Amino acid sequence: MINGKNLVAGNWESQSDSIKFQTINPKTQEALEVDFQQATSDQISRALEAASESFELVAAISLTDRIRFLECIQKEMQLIQSEIIATYQMESALAEGRANGEFQRTMDQIQRFIELLQKGNFVKASLHTGGPDLRKMLYPIGPVVVFGASNFPLAFSTAGGDTISAFAAACPVVVKAHPYHAGTSELVAQAITKAVEKCKLPKGIFSHLGGQSHDIGSELVSNPLVKGVGFTGSFSGGKALYDLAQQREEPIPVFAEMGSINPIFILEAKLKSDRSLAEAIAQSVTLGTGQFCTNPGLIVVCDPSGQFDLTKKISDRMEGLQLPPMVHENIQIQYDEQLSSFDSSNKLDTFFKSETCSAAIGSVNATRFLSDHSLMQEVFGPFTLVVECKNEEELIAVGASIEGQLTATILGEPSDAGVSKKLLSKLKSNAGRILFQGVPTGVAVTEAMQHGGPFPATTDSRFTSVGTDAVYRWLRPVAFQDCPNELLPAALQNENPLGILRTIDGKLTTDAI
Amino acid sequence: MINGKNLVAGNWESQSDSIKFQTINPKTQEALEVDFQQATSDQISRALEAASESFELVAAISLTDRIRFLECIQKEMQLIQSEIIATYQMESALAEGRANGEFQRTMDQIQRFIELLQKGNFVKASLHTGGPDLRKMLYPIGPVVVFGASNFPLAFSTAGGDTISAFAAACPVVVKAHPYHAGTSELVAQAITKAVEKCKLPKGIFSHLGGQSHDIGSELVSNPLVKGVGFTGSFSGGKALYDLAQQREEPIPVFAEMGSINPIFILEAKLKSDRSLAEAIAQSVTLGTGQFCTNPGLIVVCDPSGQFDLTKKISDRMEGLQLPPMVHENIQIQYDEQLSSFDSSNKLDTFFKSETCSAAIGSVNATRFLSDHSLMQEVFGPFTLVVECKNEEELIAVGASIEGQLTATILGEPSDAGVSKKLLSKLKSNAGRILFQGVPTGVAVTEAMQHGGPFPATTDSRFTSVGTDAVYRWLRPVAFQDCPNELLPAALQNENPLGILRTIDGKLTTDAI
Repeated sequence: MINGKNLVAGNWESQSDSIKFQTINPKTQEALEVDFQQATSDQISRALEAASESFELVAAISLTDRIRFLECIQKEMQLIQSEIIATYQMESALAEGRANGEFQRTMDQIQRFIELLQKGNFVKASLHTGGPDLRKMLYPIGPVVVFGASNFPLAFSTAGGDTISAFAAACPVVVKAHPYHAGTSELVAQAITKAVEKCKLPKGIFSHLGGQSHDIGSELVSNPLVKGVGFTGSFSGGKALYDLAQQREEPIPVFAEMGSINPIFILEAKLKSDRSLAEAIAQSVTLGTGQFCTNPGLIVVCDPSGQFDLTKKISDRMEGLQLPPMVHENIQIQYDEQLSSFDSSNKLDTFFKSETCSAAIGSVNATRFLSDHSLMQEVFGPFTLVVECKNEEELIAVGASIEGQLTATILGEPSDAGVSKKLLSKLKSNAGRILFQGVPTGVAVTEAMQHGGPFPATTDSRFTSVGTDAVYRWLRPVAFQDCPNELLPAALQNENPLGILRTIDGKLTTDAI
Repeated sequence: MINGKNLVAGNWESQSDSIKFQTINPKTQEALEVDFQQATSDQISRALEAASESFELVAAISLTDRIRFLECIQKEMQLIQSEIIATYQMESALAEGRANGEFQRTMDQIQRFIELLQKGNFVKASLHTGGPDLRKMLYPIGPVVVFGASNFPLAFSTAGGDTISAFAAACPVVVKAHPYHAGTSELVAQAITKAVEKCKLPKGIFSHLGGQSHDIGSELVSNPLVKGVGFTGSFSGGKALYDLAQQREEPIPVFAEMGSINPIFILEAKLKSDRSLAEAIAQSVTLGTGQFCTNPGLIVVCDPSGQFDLTKKISDRMEGLQLPPMVHENIQIQYDEQLSSFDSSNKLDTFFKSETCSAAIGSVNATRFLSDHSLMQEVFGPFTLVVECKNEEELIAVGASIEGQLTATILGEPSDAGVSKKLLSKLKSNAGRILFQGVPTGVAVTEAMQHGGPFPATTDSRFTSVGTDAVYRWLRPVAFQDCPNELLPAALQNENPLGILRTIDGKLTTDAI
């Protein structure tokens, strides 16, 4: 049952004088029947103090106990799955299929981190026996603050990739719940708290704070006890937190995954030959009412004859479409404002908006696109902009002009290979993931995934927020020189008691020393 | 021969109207007979434009060609070794043995990166064949600016670890030479330029700019074409560059290795039993006239009886010592100022300064140390502060209070194991490398080395500036999804043409797909 309280290091606290807020069903505009309490400055401080005080103990939790903890989180979430799914749907208006799919994805993500811990190699033990005895491994950075994302109430929120990767790294976590799905977030927090209790872990390992005010985020990130921040959301939100973190006396890493327009480049032969393109793009643009980080907001086509008119073909598919509302009225309002500014300005060559839903599309020629930087701004929602190029050179110029992106897609036929290669050479500097088939929506949670990209897509392109490599955001190397075997962490001891793969004098091995 | 000019992408440029400066022999106060030209804003811009324009080509340089380049740098430096060594000594007043030792260390560092490239595994190829075909590897971040360090004219300067690791990563480099050893730096730059020519690499891969003004560094770091910065030096210098880089429209990583006081904790039994301590510490503190990053500036002793008086034993060894001057008058002046502020204030319990050289030592009790944060500030030079603790608890409290450090050292006997363990648990959060024998000066260049630490020791504790892992500062992952084999980088192609170790579906192997 949802109680609306804040969780400070194991205690659900009720403060009668706290500011209250509610969550709203975006379909019916009805409020959920719970008064959520906004976290106070005192609660923020105490949550972080508890996280910091518990850090030494948390950092020492064995890999086996971390596995047990993650498994327990899975079980506790499954026990209240139906309540989570029902609340998720009320708070987001997303369909039951999506809710269950995202729940399962969240379980699977946790499973990938369990497997990472089972292998144990991620600590990157490196031993050097000649000269001084040097042994290095990764060690957790300290308390981490995680911000829930509005567009993924489960997979990028309370028990999402940020929190679970931080737990895998042995960092205490304070979650700032997203106010649009405070109830869903609280239920997941209840499951995590039960897991903390059952596994007898230090209570400071997890706190869960709510509220609508941006001040809560600012107070959290500014607190000197915090050592890292995970965020998925808008550019303005992520950049504000990043700036705050850099202005602290001790700057700290902020992993903000922010806007991205995920361009799709369609080369000449492909455009002519593939009749499924318009349908595939229309579906990708409108999937989840356009609220995915990898939503394709820019389609760059090489159409020398100018006769293919992909824009028209996509808009035909948008006409008469039915889409669920966006996850919150505020997001819808901002989207509508951005669209009407397109409609009223002379920025676009053509503009179409569906009468039955939010889906929309615009088009512009390459010269115009290259001369107006504002066209590269993300429109969060089911909108895409088609950039029409007269030739390869224009298409490559557009490719070279693109700001940092989570993804970029090159769709070509074998006969497009020459331009593909040139374009790829540009895009490698601009994108974290480059696709050659299909659409960028749909992000596999594997070791080989990269969900991150050069600024402004993220604040740190060297890391990923999806896939098991996400754990490296919360770790830093510590080297031990001539350390007595019994004082070494298990991963570095002579006997290799964890049986992990280690580098010994440059050679990967599971051998003991 | 030293010409005093700036190198802009392969061309040694002379600008008659540029500001001139000279380098001074700190022993004789004589100037080197060369007028060095300060780089102009125009030269800065052009060097960075050339770096940026060459980036696509540089990023595509094969591992084999990168090896050839680094080998060629070694050879070209060896050809003018005697001139480099002579200039090094004139500009730094450091002894010939140190000069030759640092030259050899620089060669060895380059050799480690050659070996890294020979193996090729550092690109971290990770392939996932189920579901979408995902293949990820590390890709260079773009043009890098490297600042030469005053205290290591070779090993942390023009062809030092920052530059060579960036070349290994396939990033173009613009070096800002340190004005205290502009001649040494230029000679090394000449060797690198010859290597660029002989290997027929794009000229934009390397530029070398000089000057005394801080504006040059600011202009370099603020330029939007720069994608990363390497710096070794003072806290004020490193932090200023870091702040500039974070205030850019696109923030970029700055790897600044800054001050560190490298505490040595001497536990009770060790203090009583080890008669070589005073000598070892006096030597480490005064090594290179105290100008090493890992110079121990804090000695924390557990001396319950208060009768051991390590301070006196060390000061006895400093008395009558002869040390070379510091590498520049300005450093000496700042050191002398810091010492006289100790002498005139009431901050210390005891203070001693050698009459024959710069070596100095102070002492303070733990209570006083814990209540005066200013005592944690680095005094760059041959000074150390002894903190006297009455018991274990005080010693651990001092350990917990320590700011981020490059190193921390615990010296104990087996009977000190209990307190060692408690102290270690604190220090893991505060230091990058923890030693259990000897002194922190002397940094082995191996894969297992960590030369970095939590802020304020560095601006990014997740990376190292010494050892082959330094290459990861200049790399970011790029994933390819469903990419045709012929468009993939060699490291990710089915056949594994490079023969490197790759992760395929979670398993490390050199197999083809």
